[in-house]
Formats: sequence, C-alpha cells, structure tokens
Amino acid sequence: MSEQEKEQSLRLRWRHIVFGTDTPSGRLFDQALIVAIIASVAAVMFDSVQSYHQKYGETLYILEWVFTVIFTTEYLVRLWISDRPGRYAFSFYGVVDLLSVLPTYLSLLIPGANFLLTIRILRVLRIFRVMKLLTFMSEAQFLASALMRARRKVVVFLFTVVIVMVSFGSLMYVIEGPQNGFTSIPSSIYWAIVTVTTVGYGDISPHTPLGQFIASLAMITGYAIIAVPTGIVTAEITSAMHRDRYSRECANCHLHEHDADARYCKRCGEGLGKLESDT
Amino acid sequence: MSEQEKEQSLRLRWRHIVFGTDTPSGRLFDQALIVAIIASVAAVMFDSVQSYHQKYGETLYILEWVFTVIFTTEYLVRLWISDRPGRYAFSFYGVVDLLSVLPTYLSLLIPGANFLLTIRILRVLRIFRVMKLLTFMSEAQFLASALMRARRKVVVFLFTVVIVMVSFGSLMYVIEGPQNGFTSIPSSIYWAIVTVTTVGYGDISPHTPLGQFIASLAMITGYAIIAVPTGIVTAEITSAMHRDRYSRECANCHLHEHDADARYCKRCGEGLGKLESDT
Amino acid sequence: MSEQEKEQSLRLRWRHIVFGTDTPSGRLFDQALIVAIIASVAAVMFDSVQSYHQKYGETLYILEWVFTVIFTTEYLVRLWISDRPGRYAFSFYGVVDLLSVLPTYLSLLIPGANFLLTIRILRVLRIFRVMKLLTFMSEAQFLASALMRARRKVVVFLFTVVIVMVSFGSLMYVIEGPQNGFTSIPSSIYWAIVTVTTVGYGDISPHTPLGQFIASLAMITGYAIIAVPTGIVTAEITSAMHRDRYSRECANCHLHEHDADARYCKRCGEGLGKLESDT
Amino acid sequence: MSEQEKEQSLRLRWRHIVFGTDTPSGRLFDQALIVAIIASVAAVMFDSVQSYHQKYGETLYILEWVFTVIFTTEYLVRLWISDRPGRYAFSFYGVVDLLSVLPTYLSLLIPGANFLLTIRILRVLRIFRVMKLLTFMSEAQFLASALMRARRKVVVFLFTVVIVMVSFGSLMYVIEGPQNGFTSIPSSIYWAIVTVTTVGYGDISPHTPLGQFIASLAMITGYAIIAVPTGIVTAEITSAMHRDRYSRECANCHLHEHDADARYCKRCGEGLGKLESDT
Repeated sequence: MSEQEKEQSLRLRWRHIVFGTDTPSGRLFDQALIVAIIASVAAVMFDSVQSYHQKYGETLYILEWVFTVIFTTEYLVRLWISDRPGRYAFSFYGVVDLLSVLPTYLSLLIPGANFLLTIRILRVLRIFRVMKLLTFMSEAQFLASALMRARRKVVVFLFTVVIVMVSFGSLMYVIEGPQNGFTSIPSSIYWAIVTVTTVGYGDISPHTPLGQFIASLAMITGYAIIAVPTGIVTAEITSAMHRDRYSRECANCHLHEHDADARYCKRCGEGLGKLESDT
Repeated sequence: MSEQEKEQSLRLRWRHIVFGTDTPSGRLFDQALIVAIIASVAAVMFDSVQSYHQKYGETLYILEWVFTVIFTTEYLVRLWISDRPGRYAFSFYGVVDLLSVLPTYLSLLIPGANFLLTIRILRVLRIFRVMKLLTFMSEAQFLASALMRARRKVVVFLFTVVIVMVSFGSLMYVIEGPQNGFTSIPSSIYWAIVTVTTVGYGDISPHTPLGQFIASLAMITGYAIIAVPTGIVTAEITSAMHRDRYSRECANCHLHEHDADARYCKRCGEGLGKLESDT
Repeated sequence: MSEQEKEQSLRLRWRHIVFGTDTPSGRLFDQALIVAIIASVAAVMFDSVQSYHQKYGETLYILEWVFTVIFTTEYLVRLWISDRPGRYAFSFYGVVDLLSVLPTYLSLLIPGANFLLTIRILRVLRIFRVMKLLTFMSEAQFLASALMRARRKVVVFLFTVVIVMVSFGSLMYVIEGPQNGFTSIPSSIYWAIVTVTTVGYGDISPHTPLGQFIASLAMITGYAIIAVPTGIVTAEITSAMHRDRYSRECANCHLHEHDADARYCKRCGEGLGKLESDT
Repeated sequence: MSEQEKEQSLRLRWRHIVFGTDTPSGRLFDQALIVAIIASVAAVMFDSVQSYHQKYGETLYILEWVFTVIFTTEYLVRLWISDRPGRYAFSFYGVVDLLSVLPTYLSLLIPGANFLLTIRILRVLRIFRVMKLLTFMSEAQFLASALMRARRKVVVFLFTVVIVMVSFGSLMYVIEGPQNGFTSIPSSIYWAIVTVTTVGYGDISPHTPLGQFIASLAMITGYAIIAVPTGIVTAEITSAMHRDRYSRECANCHLHEHDADARYCKRCGEGLGKLESDT
C-alpha cells in the first residue's frame, strides 16, 4: 500500500468523521464541536467582565489559546480532506471558520482584538445540520429566498431613508446647532437615524420649539415609512407561501409552480390532471 | 347509603358548582372567583407601594393569607372532584392555580417572593369561559394556531437576530470599551438588544464617531428586519383566514372555495344546503 | 301668519344655514365654523405657553369666553333646529360639541380645566363634510369597518399583552427592587409597558445583570409580538380591498359581494353573466 | 454658417454630453457629476465638524464656492440646452439642482445657511440613471405608485393620529403640568408624538401615577395603531404585485391571470405567445 494510498484512506476516514452526520463518530464529532464553540464564546464573554477577568484572567487566556489551536487544526483538517479546498475556503462556513480563529492571533498585535472571537457564535449555525433540523434549514432558505426577491425594493427603500435622514440631520444642525448637542452634521445625522428608526436614546434631543417641530415630523415619517419594508417583505412571503402551498408537478416538463386553478402546465401545455375542485 | 356513595354524591354536587357554567350556583361560583382573583392581585400591588404598605401593611398581609387559603382550598377541591386529578394538575390552568398560591408559602422562606402572586392575573383568563366569550376563545385559538404554524420561521428569525445582536455587541465592546459605558460583552449585547429592538433607553449609548456609525447600522438593521416576523405572521393569518372562509364543498361541481355566507355554488349555481346562520 | 309658523319658518331658514352644504350661506357658515374652531384651539395652546400667557393672558382669556359663548349658542341652535334634539345630543358630534364648551365653565370651579378645550380639535373632523372630502370619508369608513372586523382579535391580543406586562413588571420588581428605581409593582408594570411597546424612555432601566436579561426577553417579546396586530389588521384590510375590487351586483337579489371567478350569485343562484375571463 | 446655426449645433453637442447616457462623453459627464456631488456633500459635512473647520476651514470654504460655481454653470447650461427651459426648471431635478446651489449664495446673507447644501445629496438620485439601474427605477416607481394609491388612507390615518396626539398632549399638560416638564400644551403634544411613535427620548416623561397611566395608554395606542399604515401599504403592495404578475390574456379563453413565466394558458392549454425573456 503506497504512501499516497495510505494518505488517501486516512483522508477518507477523517472525512467520515468531519462531514459524516449519520456515522456515530460523525455525530460525536459534530456535537463535541458545538460544545467547544459555545464554551469558547462563553469564555470570551466571561473574560470581558472585569471582576471575572481579575479572578480567572490567566485561566481564560490559556483556554482561549487552547480553543484557538483546536479550531485552527480543525480548519486545516477541513482544508486537507475536502476535494476542493479553495471552494471550502471561500464558502460561508469556510470564511466563518477562519474568522473565528484569526482574532486570537491578531490580539498579539492589536490588544483587545480577541474579543471579536465572539464571531465564533456564527459557527453555531452548524447546529441546524448537526441536529438534523432540516425543516428549520428549509424554513431559513424559504425566508432567505423571499428576502432575496424583496432585496431590490428594500435597497431602494433604504436609499430613500438614508437621503431623508441626511436631509433631516443637516436641517436640525442648522436649526438647533452645537449649543443644543447637535455638534456637527454627522452627529446630527446620527440623531436623525436614532429618531427615524424610533430608537430614541435621548442622548441628543431638540430644545428649540422649531427643532421639536421638525423632530416631530421626522418621528411621524419614521413611524409611517416602517410600513414600506414590512409591506414589501409581507407581500413576498405571502406570494411565496401561496406558490409553495399549491405546488403540483407537471408530468411532462416537471414544473412545480402551478396555481391552484391551473388545468394545464403553463410551460409546456401538458394537462395537469383533475383539480381538487373538479368532479 | 354507604360512605362512598355519600362522598360520590358530594363530589357530583361540588362538580356542578365548580365546573358548571349554566347552573346558577356554577355561574355564581365563577363570578365570585374572578372577583376574588382581581381583589387579591390588587392587594398584592397595593402592598408593593411603600406608602400603602406602611399604612395598611398588616391588613394586606392578613388579606394575602386569606386569599391564599381560599385558593389553596379551591385547588385541593378541584383535585378532589376531577376524575383525572393528574391530568388537571398538569393542565395549563392546573399549573397556574398552583403557581398562584405557592409564592405566599415561599415568602416564608424567601422574603419578597409573595410579590410573584401577581401571576394570579393569569387565572383571570378564566373570564373568557365565565362570560361565555366563546367567540373570543375561538379568535384566540385562531391566532394561536396561526402563530403555531409560524413558529419555526419565527425561531429561525429570532436565532438570526440573537446572532446579529451578539456580533454587534462584541464589536461595540471593542470599539467603545468600558470607558464609554460598554463595561463588558454581556452588557454590550444588552445594549445591542436595546438598540436593535428600537427600545433605546439611552442608559448606554455610543460616544465615539465610529461607535455611532456602527450603532446607526444596528438601528437600521433592527428597523428593517422587524419586517420579517411581521411578514411571516401576516402571511400565516391571511392564509388561515382564507382557509376559514373557504370551507364548504359543492355537491355538484365539488368546488371547495365558497364564502361563509354562500347559499349557492358560485360556479355551477347548485344549492349548497343550509347555512349555520339558517334556522 | 301665526307665532308657531313664524318660528317654524325661522327654524327652516337656520337649518339651511347650519346643515346646508350646497347653499352659499351653508358653505359660508361651515367655513367660518372651521376657522373659529382652529382659532380657538390655537388660542388655548398659546395661553398654555408661560411667556405668551404673561403678555396676552387677559386677551386670550376674553377670547376664550367669546369662543365659548359662540359655540354654546351654536350648540343650542343645533338643538333647537334639529327635529330630534335628543338624537343629535347623543350623536358623536353632539357630544363633541358639548365637550368643547364645558371645560370653560368647569374652569370656574377647577382652575386649569379650560386647557381641555383642545378637545375642540375633534370638531375639525367636520372639515371632511365641509370640504366635500367624501372620498376621504369613504376611506375612513373603509378603515373603520376593517378595524371593526379585527376588533375581537385585537382585544384578545391586548388582553394577552397586558397579562405579559403585568408578569414582567412584577418579576422585575422582585429582581431589581426599589433601590434600582422599580419602586412598586404598578411602576414596574409602567416600566414593562414602556419596554414592551419599545418606547423606552430610560427613566427606569434595569441595573442588575439578571434584570437586564429579563428586560432583554421583554424587549424581544415586544419586538416580535408587534407582528400580531399588524398581521390581523393587514389580513382584514387585504380581504376587504379584495372584496371591494371585485364587486359585481346580482340582477336578482342585488348582492354585491361576489368573488372574481363567480358565475352564479352565491345567495340566490342567479347567473351573474359573463366573467371578464370568459369569451 | 450663421451665428444661430453655430449656436444650435453647439447646443446639440452639449445636449449629447449632458443628457446622453450611451455616448462615452455622456457617461463620463454623468460619472464626474456624481463624484462632484458626493465630494461637495462630504466637504460640507467635514466643515460642520469643529476640529476640521479650524484646521481646513478656509480650504473647505474655497472648495464650497468652487463646487457652487460649477453646479451653477451646469444649471444654467441645462436651462440653455433644454428645448423647454421652463419645464426643466419646474421638474423635480430642476428644483433640486437650483436648491443645491442657492444655500451658498444665501449664506452671504444668513450665516450657516450653507450647511443646507447637503440637500445636494438629492442630486445623487441621478445615480440610478447613470448606472442604468433601470430595474431599480422600475422598483422605485412600483413602490411610489403603490404608495400613491395608499395615500388617501394614509392621510386619514395621520389626521386621526394627530388628533389623538393633541388630545393626549393637552390631557397630560393638565395632569402633569409644568412642574413635571410638561411646560406647555405644544411641548406636551411634542411629548405625545415622541411617545405614540414609540421613539421615547425620555427628555420629558410622566412622574405622577395618573400621568404614567395615561402615558401607558398612549404607548399601547401607538403600539397598536402602527398596524394600520402597515396594513394599508401591505395590502396595496400585495394587490399591485398581483396585478403585475397577472397581465397577459389567453387568445383562446381570454383568461387574464397568467404568471410572468407562463407559455401556455393554465385553463385551456392554448399557447400564450413569446415571453419577454424569449429571443
């Protein structure tokens, strides 16, 4: 058995462990991974709390490096065993896996960067695959696709909102001015965003009657236009659900998306058979 | 007449009083119960206000024990008279009934626990049954079922939102840091939740320009994604209403989609038989 | 010409002026009324501003009485000229008309009550009738009817929300306690309302980690359940619009509400004639 | 070649540059314009920040005038080359173009007016045309038309909301009064707007129990009625999407409702002719 064959068989065994979801070893690996991810995120969070940092700072620091080494190894293994390493490296999970180890190394150069390790939380998305929550995945894909269809409308909407905020912001800067907390146009735009999105921290708020009047307009605008993205997304989801619900397949061209009252395939003209509502 | 028979007949009489909604005694019992519940909740609330506590503290304390004893007795009676005590004990109302007496006993060990007595408010849900607000019950069930169907999508959504909040939180912790009120990652995540849900207390708010920029992104995100759950729920409710309206089948052409008030098939003119609303 | 006849003819002439919307005199009266209403509301608002009050206090006080006398006279005239005074007196406008003069008289007993005169703003609703904005009225009725159909669902929803708020409120009172601003259960419930509705003043906000965690749950709850009323109302409006758009009348029983694809009247079985989609 | 002919040919050449979107020169002009607009807005924003103003104030002042002169020239050129100058001058872009140069001249009279130059951001809307984002334009028009159809309902809604806010505002003024920050009815109405729109700055907040109760009602009102505009807009967008999808007629059975991608009638199987997407 040549070197290459050995290596090949080794890769295959590992692939079973890492990518396998049915094999016991595969499930064990996945579960261990989830636990490790959550533990590492928890560790980072604990470390960020002063009191804990003083007590357990060193332990947590070591723990952080342990997890980082583990995840780095895992990342390299995944690169090694996948047929198309490049494809994995640039896939969503590939990027996330890389991002969830980089901060520790970065923290050697930039102190504090390691707190970005919480990005590891994204790896928990694997939990869907692990727990065979395929229904959830399909739901997620359903939502994603609906949002994809809505994206252009949403972009147009956000573009408009940004312009509205810039206008309100600079208007308020001229009306209220630095003496009332509107120290600059950028910070006034920040105020406009805080207001139009109805967040309303109150760290900056108008004091002049005119300013309060303009602010009221900004609020009512924000209160009213929230309706637009909601309307867009709702419309997309509704029509998507409608299509889903009434999907019958054409025997000829295998098109799925037919309306409830369709008697013939809209693509190839083949009959679709009786409707529920037919005798 | 044997002991057991007596006991049996007694149970039956009590059952009429406790579960009966048509018998005068049953209605009286239910109404008295609602009044007692509201009174007891009011008492707890009053007691929590310092000024009242000093004046009427003792009276309210006695009152609390009186109500607790009454409700405890009622709970035991319900257990005694129901054929399947276990089933009642673990039903929604059974658990609520138990929870609405426990805190008083707990307060002997843990002071202040008795304020959890306001959980009794949940018992008021009985009001629907008492007042024969069956239509309301059906509406409630309608909504509940629509939400049940939407639950998986909502879970996926909330899961995503949590991940977004964790990311924004830790990012802000790195950018703003403790000196600007972002004392730890957990508290930064708290800030992120306050911001993305557009609550915006303002107890923590960004001070650095970069922080304000990231915060603006968080707000716009929260402002935009509120559209998703709304879209999901709306779509479910719409399709549920649609199904409701379209329930009866035409005997001739077997068309299903008829309005609730349809007497004749809208496609073939065949009679659809009596309406519920007909005599 | 007898006294009564004179009085009758006088009433008729006045009725033309007060209720007439086509006669020049009627239009003039209505327009003058709107102007008077807005002027009087403006006067009340001005008077509430300290600086103006000191300067023009007396003038505004006189003005207020002038308007009140005018509106009182108008109210009495309306009572006098209407055939069924009782019916007018208890109609929406009748009540509003009365409420918009009472506060001034009340202010003789209770100082400050006169600021409630702004209720007069409700009279401006007449503007719809005056300006012949019938389309707007129909829109308003359309919305009102949609909301009426949704009311039971909304009541159930609000009932649930109130219970949620009471629970969160008392829970937070136990967790945070008076030392953190949660001075009593009622004020904690006030906090819960401020939070769940995503208003978030920040006048009361949690300080303990556990409190902040519960608060986060409250926020996410509020952020998610806003979807429910929206879903309800949207569904109602959508179906109402659908019905509106496709209203064809049955020649036999004159039923309007038919679906787009209906060939026969769903009530009397009469043919509805060709569909748009028929040859 | 006469003077006029020369002038005419010159106008034509310029028209190619300014209005042309296919010619290289045209594209270059448009792109340069976008860059100039964004640069000028950035300059104004920078200038509003104290620290930058002190450092680069003069440079930015010169820059501002340079941009203003450029845009003024451009405006005049547009007037000159367009066949109907008046029509351009009163078109949306015409007005925006004028407004984006006026503030600089105004600032000679009113200091600070120049900060209104950020209105120039509106000119960026041209970016859609420049980048041939026609799909986006159509989406924008789609939304705009849906909102146009919804406008009357929204007006009725906003009218009602304003009346609600005035009522709540003056009620709170009477209850809380100046000593609690409700200094006047106008400022109380400002509070009502801040509350009902769920912005909640917290700069003004109720302190009396009764005030907090009324405020709670205001919040729940605001939380519930947001459903109305959302419902309106959603319904309009849904039906608009419905119309969009269902646009083509079957030559055989004259059914209108076909999906955009349908090649054959879903009812009678007749061909529907070429799709847009076909060659």
